[in-house]
Amino acid sequence: MRYAVFMQPTRAPQSRKTRSADRRAELIAVGKRVFASRPYDAVATEDLAAEAGISVGLLYHYFGDKRGFYLATLRSAADQMLLEVDFHGATLVEGAAPLLERFMDFVELHPAMFRGILRGGVGADAEVYALAATVRQTFIDRILRAAGCAKVSPERLLAMHAWLGSAEAAALYFIDGGADREAVVNLLASTLPPFLFEELA
Amino acid sequence: MRYAVFMQPTRAPQSRKTRSADRRAELIAVGKRVFASRPYDAVATEDLAAEAGISVGLLYHYFGDKRGFYLATLRSAADQMLLEVDFHGATLVEGAAPLLERFMDFVELHPAMFRGILRGGVGADAEVYALAATVRQTFIDRILRAAGCAKVSPERLLAMHAWLGSAEAAALYFIDGGADREAVVNLLASTLPPFLFEELA
Repeated sequence: MRYAVFMQPTRAPQSRKTRSADRRAELIAVGKRVFASRPYDAVATEDLAAEAGISVGLLYHYFGDKRGFYLATLRSAADQMLLEVDFHGATLVEGAAPLLERFMDFVELHPAMFRGILRGGVGADAEVYALAATVRQTFIDRILRAAGCAKVSPERLLAMHAWLGSAEAAALYFIDGGADREAVVNLLASTLPPFLFEELA
Repeated sequence: MRYAVFMQPTRAPQSRKTRSADRRAELIAVGKRVFASRPYDAVATEDLAAEAGISVGLLYHYFGDKRGFYLATLRSAADQMLLEVDFHGATLVEGAAPLLERFMDFVELHPAMFRGILRGGVGADAEVYALAATVRQTFIDRILRAAGCAKVSPERLLAMHAWLGSAEAAALYFIDGGADREAVVNLLASTLPPFLFEELA
């Protein structure tokens, strides 16, 4: 009977595509770790490849270049933030404080990725900018939905963008050691645009 | 009598140091124009030197490298913003609206520089970050002084950073065409942290 174990594979063999996707995910995990501890400009492509245990050629094969690799780690971090920081069906009144706690959980665990998505370095990168814009728009849509606000005026949309900007600034100030977490959550909960609570009154 | 004009120089001859500073200022003006219209990564050092009418070697002599040149233009733009966007002795109640108008004047005239100071591209640049932090701290100090608030608690300092973050986000939203200028000024004037007006009540 023992030899049947060897005959029967414990799981179905992976397709080449699945293996490639797994490999890519592994590399992105390495990238997140490296870019979280060292500034982008200080990381050599050779070091990245060595850290991931692959050749520079293979890294280029997967991501094009160092910037492509960095963008892939940022995108992955942004996806994770959007997955974790959600209302999960709660209304704004029930869900605002838990959402802000989850937001701060992410910020606390991934400060370098959070900063990388929202604030870059030298120059302006259109793809990073577009990624940040998508994240912002998603959060604004979620908050409006949780508040039961279907359509909003341009002024109210501006107020949402300004509030989100204050959330980003407060979180970065927290990362830099300027404020404690509870103060950030309390401030942001109390400065949400008042119109969000009108529909519910 | 006419020949006396030729004998007497109309202005004192410049020292080598002054000429060098003038040249640097001229080059920075060129840099601001170039970086305002094209993304950092798309500008070749050779193009910058050609635009400025100097050799690449001389550009390196003045600024070290392309990044050094870019940082010099950002610093110069930040200095200009701090010079123009001030209370000029007014109190917060009198001065808030004019200050916000001057802020939006700067944003409207120098959108690329404003974005460059506050939001970069790929990676995180410590010097750009430090520059933005200095600009923010200066504005916070000015607003607190105009409000007559000498010492503030950490919570109030956090509220100031959050409000400034909302001002940056609203201005960037304006640059991207999302909101009109008047709406931004009205929103920011109405969302200044309430404690700023307590001292005056």
